[in-house]
Amino acid sequence: MTTGRVDIGSGVGDRPHAVVVGAGFGGLEAAKQLGQLPLDVTVVDRRNYHLFQPLLYQVATGGLNPGDIAEPVRAILRERNVQVILGDVVGIDMDGQHVAIDDGRTIPFDYLVLAAGVRSGYFGHPEWEPHAPGLKTIEDAVEIRRRVLAAFERADRTPDPEDRLRDLTFVVVGGGATGVELAGAIGEIANRSMARKIFRSFDTASATVLLIDAGSRVLPSFHPSLSKDALDQLRALGVTIMLDTMVTGIDDSGVDVVSDGIEQRIGASTVIWAAGVEGPSLSTQTGADLDRAGRVLVQPDLSVAGHPEVFVIGDMAHIEQDGAMVPGVAPAAIQGGQHVAAAIRADLGGTARPPFRYVDKGSLATIGHSAAVMEIGRFRASGFVAWVAWWALHIALIVGFRSRVLVMFGWGWSWLTRRRGVGIITREWTPRVDGDEAG
Amino acid sequence: MTTGRVDIGSGVGDRPHAVVVGAGFGGLEAAKQLGQLPLDVTVVDRRNYHLFQPLLYQVATGGLNPGDIAEPVRAILRERNVQVILGDVVGIDMDGQHVAIDDGRTIPFDYLVLAAGVRSGYFGHPEWEPHAPGLKTIEDAVEIRRRVLAAFERADRTPDPEDRLRDLTFVVVGGGATGVELAGAIGEIANRSMARKIFRSFDTASATVLLIDAGSRVLPSFHPSLSKDALDQLRALGVTIMLDTMVTGIDDSGVDVVSDGIEQRIGASTVIWAAGVEGPSLSTQTGADLDRAGRVLVQPDLSVAGHPEVFVIGDMAHIEQDGAMVPGVAPAAIQGGQHVAAAIRADLGGTARPPFRYVDKGSLATIGHSAAVMEIGRFRASGFVAWVAWWALHIALIVGFRSRVLVMFGWGWSWLTRRRGVGIITREWTPRVDGDEAG
Repeated sequence: MTTGRVDIGSGVGDRPHAVVVGAGFGGLEAAKQLGQLPLDVTVVDRRNYHLFQPLLYQVATGGLNPGDIAEPVRAILRERNVQVILGDVVGIDMDGQHVAIDDGRTIPFDYLVLAAGVRSGYFGHPEWEPHAPGLKTIEDAVEIRRRVLAAFERADRTPDPEDRLRDLTFVVVGGGATGVELAGAIGEIANRSMARKIFRSFDTASATVLLIDAGSRVLPSFHPSLSKDALDQLRALGVTIMLDTMVTGIDDSGVDVVSDGIEQRIGASTVIWAAGVEGPSLSTQTGADLDRAGRVLVQPDLSVAGHPEVFVIGDMAHIEQDGAMVPGVAPAAIQGGQHVAAAIRADLGGTARPPFRYVDKGSLATIGHSAAVMEIGRFRASGFVAWVAWWALHIALIVGFRSRVLVMFGWGWSWLTRRRGVGIITREWTPRVDGDEAG
Repeated sequence: MTTGRVDIGSGVGDRPHAVVVGAGFGGLEAAKQLGQLPLDVTVVDRRNYHLFQPLLYQVATGGLNPGDIAEPVRAILRERNVQVILGDVVGIDMDGQHVAIDDGRTIPFDYLVLAAGVRSGYFGHPEWEPHAPGLKTIEDAVEIRRRVLAAFERADRTPDPEDRLRDLTFVVVGGGATGVELAGAIGEIANRSMARKIFRSFDTASATVLLIDAGSRVLPSFHPSLSKDALDQLRALGVTIMLDTMVTGIDDSGVDVVSDGIEQRIGASTVIWAAGVEGPSLSTQTGADLDRAGRVLVQPDLSVAGHPEVFVIGDMAHIEQDGAMVPGVAPAAIQGGQHVAAAIRADLGGTARPPFRYVDKGSLATIGHSAAVMEIGRFRASGFVAWVAWWALHIALIVGFRSRVLVMFGWGWSWLTRRRGVGIITREWTPRVDGDEAG
C-alpha cells in the first residue's frame, strides 16, 4: 500500500486531518460541521453528487428526474478547509492511519469518519439481484423505471396472453417504507396515470401490483394502527398485499413464494427488491465486529473499538439504543454526523466526548397520489394530512433551491394532472429483459 | 418474413393503413396530420419518446435533465385512429407493402412514411466512434456529460502534469450548429460556471476547448458575417477555433490533425464528434438511390421512385431544391410531414399531389450564456438580441407545458446564477475512459 504512495490533503498547516468517506446524509453533515473546526477535511465519494435518497422511488416511477434530487458535492461543500475527492475507498490501514483509493493513492488521516451507507442485500442469494434490482442508486432508479415502462410496452406487443399476464404483473419484495412507496407509486401508474386507454390491446388497470413481505404487517417500524391504514391506502391504489409470505426464489420469469407452508409460483417479468440491505465491503476493513448484515458494531460514541479516531455513522453503523437498533434513516445519519463533530470538538478542547443519543423526530411514509402515514412521538396521522406533512418536510429538506423548485413543480404538476412527467425509457430498449443486462 | 407473420393494425374498418417509422419532428407531424384523415395510422419508434433534439446539447453540458426535453409518444398522439408501437423496424418489403419489426411481427401498409433520421457518421472511420461520441440520443448526451465532468475530476486526481493537460483539453470536431453550441457550452463551463476554485489543484479556466473544422468558417449555412460573429462569441468564451484543419485520427488519448500540410498531435481525453451524419441502414431497404451519406434521394413529392405510396422525410431524405440540399433541420422535417399529409389527402380526393417546397423560415444557433446568431431571410442579428429570439422560439416549440416550464426555469436559474443545474455524473465512474465503455 506504500508503493507509489502519494499523500493528499495532509499538512496544510499543522492542523489535524479528518477524512470523511461518503457524501450521503451522514457524511455531508459531518463534513459541514467539521469544516467549522480547526481541521483540514477531505471528503471522498465515488459519486460526484449527494443523493436525496428518500425521493429515489419517485425517479424509479417517473415522477422526478435524476438531476432533481442530486446535487454535486463540490457545489455543497464550499468551506476553504474542505476538499472533495472523487474516488472509491478500497482499503483502510487502521494502525497506519490512512485510506487507499482506487487510483493507487493513499490519504493519511488523524480522524476518519466512515459513512459509506449500505447496498441492497439478498440474504445470501446474489443470483437474485439481476432479476430483482434494489433501489439504492440513480442507476437503479433509472433501471427500475425502464423495466416498469418496458413491461407495459411488451404487454402491448405480445400476442400471447400468458406473456401479457406476466408482463402486467409487478412484484415488490419488502414491506418497509421503500417497498410501500414503490408499490403505491406503481399501483398509481397502472390504475390512475395511464388509465386513459393509451394501450390498444389491454387496460393498464388490469395490471397486478403485488407487495410481498415475510412479516405480518407493512411498515413494521410504525405503530400497528398506521400499518393498517397503509394497507388500506395501498389497496385503494390496487395493490395486492401478501403478508407472512417468504420469497424462496427469483428468476427472469417470476418469484417462488411460500405462505403457510404452501409453495406458489408467481409469474412476473418485473420484480423489485426492497427487502434487505447489507453493509459495504469496507466494513470488514475496520477490524471491528459486524452484525449479520455486515454493519459495524460501534461504541457508544460511534467510534470503532480500540480506535477512538475512527467513527462509523449512518446506515453503515449498527447502533444499539434502549435495546433496539437505531433505524437506517436520514435523520439518524445526520445526527451521527453532528455527534462526530461534537466528539472531535471535545477532543480538541481536551474535554470528555459526549455519548451519542438518537432522537426520533418521527416517521413518515407516503402512499401514492395523496396519502401517507406519519408518527411523531405519540401523535399519529394518516391520509391527506400526513401526505401534506410529508410533502412539506421533503421540500424543506432537499438540498438546494433549484432542486426545491423543480421538485415542487414536478409534484404539483403530477398531482393536478395525475400524470407522471418522466415516462421515458432510456438505455436501448430490448424486447425481453435478460438477467445479464442489469450488470 | 411471412413465417409466423402477425399483422397489426390493419383492417379496422376498410380504411387505408398508413405506417410512420420514427417519431422525431417529421414523423410526429406526419402522424398528427394523417390522424385527421380517414386513415388508420400506426407509428413505430424504437424509443418510447419524442426527443426535442435542438436542446440535446444542453443535456450533454448539464443545463437540462433528459426528461425535460423528452415526451412519451403515447402522451402526444392521442387520436383514436393513431396507434403507437415500440419497436425497431428491421425490414421493408416494398412490393409486398409491409414492414418487419424486431419482435418478428410485420405491419402491412397502404402508405409508408419513413422518418427514421440519421446517426453520427465517421467518414469511413467507425473505429473513431468509441473515442468521440456523437450527439444524437439521450444516451449520447448523458455519456458526453459524464466524460466532460469526469475529465475535470481526473485532472484533480492526477499528479502527472501531462495527464492533467490532456484531461483539461476538450476537442469538438465539426463547426456546424451542434459543434458550435457544444463548444460554447463547454467553454462556458470551464471559464464561467466552474471558475470559483472548486478544484484545489488547478483552475478550470486553464482548460482548453478546441473547435476543429475542415472548412474555412464555422456555421457554413449562415451568412459569412454571422460566422464571423459566432467566432468572436466563441473566443469570448475561451474557445480556440482551428479552421481548415482535417482530423486524420482519433484514439483514446487525442486526435491527429493536418493543417496546411502540417501534421499535429493534440492530446485530449475528451473528444466529441459533430462533423458528420449518415442515413440509417433502413435507407438501403427502400431500393432507392442514396447519396454518399446514405440518405434517400426522393422524388419532388418526397416519394421513392417507383413507389408513390412510400415517402421519406426529414434528415433521412436527400431533397434537392434550387440546386442545394434542403438542410437537416427540424422545420424541414416538419414541413415534410405536412407535405406527406397533403399528398395523401390529394390521393384520397383523386386530385394531383402538390410538389414539396421547403420554406426557409430562418436559422438560429446559440453560443454560451447569452449570445447567438440568427438569420431570417435577409435579416441578420447576433449577440443578445439573437439569443433572446433563440430562447423564445425554443420555449415556444418544445412539446408539452410541463417541459416548457421546466426548461424555462432551468435556463432562468442557470442564466442568473451562471451555474449549470445538472452537474451529476451517472453510470459508474471509472478513473479512465476506455474505448469499449461507450459500447
